[in-house]
Amino acid sequence: MARRLAYSKSKANAMVAALLDEGVLDEVGLQESSGGRRAETLRLSESLGAVLGVDMDATSMQLALMRPDMAVLARQCETIDVRRGPGVILAQLCGLMRELMARCGLSSSQLIAIGMGVPGPVDFASGQLVNPPLMPDWDGFSIRDYLREAFVAPVFVDNDVNLMALGKLWRLQRTLSDFLVIKVGTGIGCGIVCHGQVYRGTNGSAGDVGHICVDQAGPRCHCGNQGCVEAMAAAPALVRAAIEVAQKGESSWLAERLQASGSLGIEDLAQASRVGDVAANILIQRAGSLVGQMLASVVNFFNPSHVFIGGLVADMGPLFLASVRQSVYHRSLALSTRHLEIQCAPLADDAALVGAGVLAMQESLTQSGGAP
Amino acid sequence: MARRLAYSKSKANAMVAALLDEGVLDEVGLQESSGGRRAETLRLSESLGAVLGVDMDATSMQLALMRPDMAVLARQCETIDVRRGPGVILAQLCGLMRELMARCGLSSSQLIAIGMGVPGPVDFASGQLVNPPLMPDWDGFSIRDYLREAFVAPVFVDNDVNLMALGKLWRLQRTLSDFLVIKVGTGIGCGIVCHGQVYRGTNGSAGDVGHICVDQAGPRCHCGNQGCVEAMAAAPALVRAAIEVAQKGESSWLAERLQASGSLGIEDLAQASRVGDVAANILIQRAGSLVGQMLASVVNFFNPSHVFIGGLVADMGPLFLASVRQSVYHRSLALSTRHLEIQCAPLADDAALVGAGVLAMQESLTQSGGAP
Repeated sequence: MARRLAYSKSKANAMVAALLDEGVLDEVGLQESSGGRRAETLRLSESLGAVLGVDMDATSMQLALMRPDMAVLARQCETIDVRRGPGVILAQLCGLMRELMARCGLSSSQLIAIGMGVPGPVDFASGQLVNPPLMPDWDGFSIRDYLREAFVAPVFVDNDVNLMALGKLWRLQRTLSDFLVIKVGTGIGCGIVCHGQVYRGTNGSAGDVGHICVDQAGPRCHCGNQGCVEAMAAAPALVRAAIEVAQKGESSWLAERLQASGSLGIEDLAQASRVGDVAANILIQRAGSLVGQMLASVVNFFNPSHVFIGGLVADMGPLFLASVRQSVYHRSLALSTRHLEIQCAPLADDAALVGAGVLAMQESLTQSGGAP
Repeated sequence: MARRLAYSKSKANAMVAALLDEGVLDEVGLQESSGGRRAETLRLSESLGAVLGVDMDATSMQLALMRPDMAVLARQCETIDVRRGPGVILAQLCGLMRELMARCGLSSSQLIAIGMGVPGPVDFASGQLVNPPLMPDWDGFSIRDYLREAFVAPVFVDNDVNLMALGKLWRLQRTLSDFLVIKVGTGIGCGIVCHGQVYRGTNGSAGDVGHICVDQAGPRCHCGNQGCVEAMAAAPALVRAAIEVAQKGESSWLAERLQASGSLGIEDLAQASRVGDVAANILIQRAGSLVGQMLASVVNFFNPSHVFIGGLVADMGPLFLASVRQSVYHRSLALSTRHLEIQCAPLADDAALVGAGVLAMQESLTQSGGAP
């Protein structure tokens, strides 16, 4: 710590002692000896309060109360339909947040900050959603102002994939400086870490890769253009294709499932693939290949060291990731892929939820979050 | 200066006085009064020596001897064919460099450093070219080691478009933090400025946008893939298309020119466009539109504030840039293009040459450039 701050050892020691006195840091036990005197493990004190992280996507809402070191105190998950609009969804969210705080015996004055991820472009400076394709009713709506009225704490809102990147950066303890996180779910987005920091772009819309064209003759996307990768390889497109396959009788497994439940979801397609259904596997491979084609452009441009792929679709199994890899290595230049690693980032990792907590902690230390 | 360094005014004044004493800084006259006492203009002293900047592309070599503040002392331009390989080209370059130094009466000990841009991917750490499509004979060759043997100064080699970005950053006095420089010449490349610094990627190949696919059914590129934007919209593709148009009799202007000189170049196409030749204009518009299509993907991903477009093809006239703009605004998302400015960066600007000088100065202050 002394080295990082360019402080002398005695100055650093005095500073730590003062922070322990003030209750900012806690001593939580001795570390293993590495030869000399055993070092004390320090941690930001629980008495500082907690941050609330929220990861919202098109169909669900994850919440967690976290200590300043991102240890989870309590968590909750709720199924939603984001298209019901901000009024309904945020009222529900506020209820859940209060419940979570009550469960931990946390008063509102102990809430340090709130961090929240949403599945659409956010103008990070104003906290407003801008033209979010998956949630049109939220256009121009400020989640930050809404939550700030309900809670006294500062509020920070960001795109969910940026928060996956921030969570990853935190978990990796900043050992990687240039990497990407791709989420393939209801939409397709990308979080960018560049020079060791999350990069949001001029208007906060960096990483909006879902509307990169992968087929000029492809289907029309809700954005108005043709052949966007999101319109061809995200969850809704895959589900539509699976239903078509079932109706045409190309997969007896999917046809049976469709008849039994009246509809199909991504989980059905994943199960079909696991039992070796050929038609399901073709759909998954094609989606992986299209995502890989988009990613090849992005890798040529950005030359990252790692790409982490997560989300509902990527979670289906190793076949999707294999197809992505094959497509990227085929289409990208040799130098860009020489050391490139493409890895899975399972949803169970909670990267975005951790990222929401990190955002809350980090930003509340450096800015006001729109608080008066 | 005091504010930037977090020094007190008196400490900053004492430091400047010491640097003047040591001959590192020169006083070169009083500035206009802005109310109070007129400030002295300071400049890095000429007595520190000079840097040598080189901007090499597939067909020409620009050299300049520059003062530490990038004022040009002498310059030279030479036509080359980069495919003749490093032996021939670098022997010629060394001769020109010595000539330039002699012309300025500069001894080799006064050469601070050499900065050089090349039209291909460079592993910035090792100074080696890696798989450069336009100059296959240079693969794995270290220009740095070659020049370091011929001159005593440290040598820094980078991709030419990275140097255009660095030159632009210098000229703009770092007022923009996130922008792109695209060069459309014999190849197509992109320099990236992110968080106020040139971003080179994990292997130094960031910005390799020439091989982004814009047409799955397009012609085969020298990289092995199909429909790369470089194979369809860079100078060689345009010249081939112009010759075809002339031979088919679709442009009498180009046909006459072809018959008169036996071949056509980019300059002929530009002239045909200026006299209103319809077929020439269609070719230029199509190239601009394809570059715009590639750029739309990149803008969706990176959300820059500015894109500067230069190079042989972009220099042809406003029609090319207009087509690029139209295609980007059509294909990119609203939020990414809300404040986006796409501007021309004429070759006459010498951005890459200035960038080579800035690279030499900047890197020699922070690292050894492979010097023993």
